Amino acid sequence: MAELTGPGELPVTDRTRHRRLREQGSTARADLDAVLRAGFVCHLGVLLDGAPMVVPTVYGADGDTVYVHGSVASRSLVQAPEAPVCVTVTHVDGLVLARSVFEHGVNYRSAMIYGVPRRVTDPAELLDGLRVLTEHAAPGQWDHARRPSRKELAATTLLALDLAEASVKLRSGPPDDGDSPDAALGLWAGELPLHHTWGAPVPDPALPPGTPVPPHIARRSGRPAG
Amino acid sequence: MAELTGPGELPVTDRTRHRRLREQGSTARADLDAVLRAGFVCHLGVLLDGAPMVVPTVYGADGDTVYVHGSVASRSLVQAPEAPVCVTVTHVDGLVLARSVFEHGVNYRSAMIYGVPRRVTDPAELLDGLRVLTEHAAPGQWDHARRPSRKELAATTLLALDLAEASVKLRSGPPDDGDSPDAALGLWAGELPLHHTWGAPVPDPALPPGTPVPPHIARRSGRPAG
Repeated sequence: MAELTGPGELPVTDRTRHRRLREQGSTARADLDAVLRAGFVCHLGVLLDGAPMVVPTVYGADGDTVYVHGSVASRSLVQAPEAPVCVTVTHVDGLVLARSVFEHGVNYRSAMIYGVPRRVTDPAELLDGLRVLTEHAAPGQWDHARRPSRKELAATTLLALDLAEASVKLRSGPPDDGDSPDAALGLWAGELPLHHTWGAPVPDPALPPGTPVPPHIARRSGRPAG
Repeated sequence: MAELTGPGELPVTDRTRHRRLREQGSTARADLDAVLRAGFVCHLGVLLDGAPMVVPTVYGADGDTVYVHGSVASRSLVQAPEAPVCVTVTHVDGLVLARSVFEHGVNYRSAMIYGVPRRVTDPAELLDGLRVLTEHAAPGQWDHARRPSRKELAATTLLALDLAEASVKLRSGPPDDGDSPDAALGLWAGELPLHHTWGAPVPDPALPPGTPVPPHIARRSGRPAG
């Protein structure tokens, strides 16, 4: 059991205090909007046969509403149309490598939105919700691509969830044990950042050769058009 | 309602057939292992007051068990210790930009694991589970950092979940409407890849200047040690 003892044990209350230095909860709308803007894939939590099911899907935010593509959760939505859901959006910014295993963690930004979603059925709102989703993922794409037909709209499951009950959690910066007795161990500690970057657009092999990449896609990828 | 009509409407059955070309479900263990190996953050779905709650947390896989750090879900685990959970790991590989809005999507690899987790309480298994988590995120770090004390172990919430009930979903490649009537629209279509790369290690400002980055961290970041 030698692993169970170590130099510089920190009391649990210190841990709590330290964590609070760099891990913050927020209910600020600006923080929520920033987390939602930074991504396009969420994890949608629903109930299926009484158990939680967590499915990745796309979302887009518009004012006080987040629209979520719900086809992946359709079995659950048919089973319990008035059931609560949780929509979580997480950006992983890096690994926090501390002196002690216990203080290891992740730098991240995460939003959790709770509520009973509304299934969008009105064709005009369905169309507008798909516009929000499309423009959220690829700004400019709504005016580029062929818009949904009536039949396609009817085959689309879209959920609208109010942003009223939401919370944000953020962590950034170095580990929390730099001012603890563990600092005397002389171990390297720090952050290993994780970057998320768009690559160059890959044309569909079915395209006629030389079909130019549209400027809005080149912009999204962070590259000059051409 | 001009947006609701468009050239080359595809019947819903075609959509299904097309999707199946490039979006695949798998129950192959090798696919599950590959998805789990490629990440270190999962989304843990639990029940809290009868509603789903989806929280990001760290995990590590070892044999037929996935260990999940459960402190973020501790309220739920106290409330319902024998309740089912869902652990979902998702890698977003790119945006699929089709000719039609309806065929837009995401290239991704995702694993979902269902079951009733076991709360790890035995100190030896707790320690081993933390080793799995630590080595999963940063190979070599377990032998580098100070290992958990008894007190720290007692303050750790760790869940063990069997990999018996799991499924994998994968999508890759170009959009599915390259051989549809929409191809005649002449619109650019393709994939916008999303890359996830480690940055250079950022030393804790509290470190003495010149503290060298350990080789295992340099390796993890994809950079030469120095």
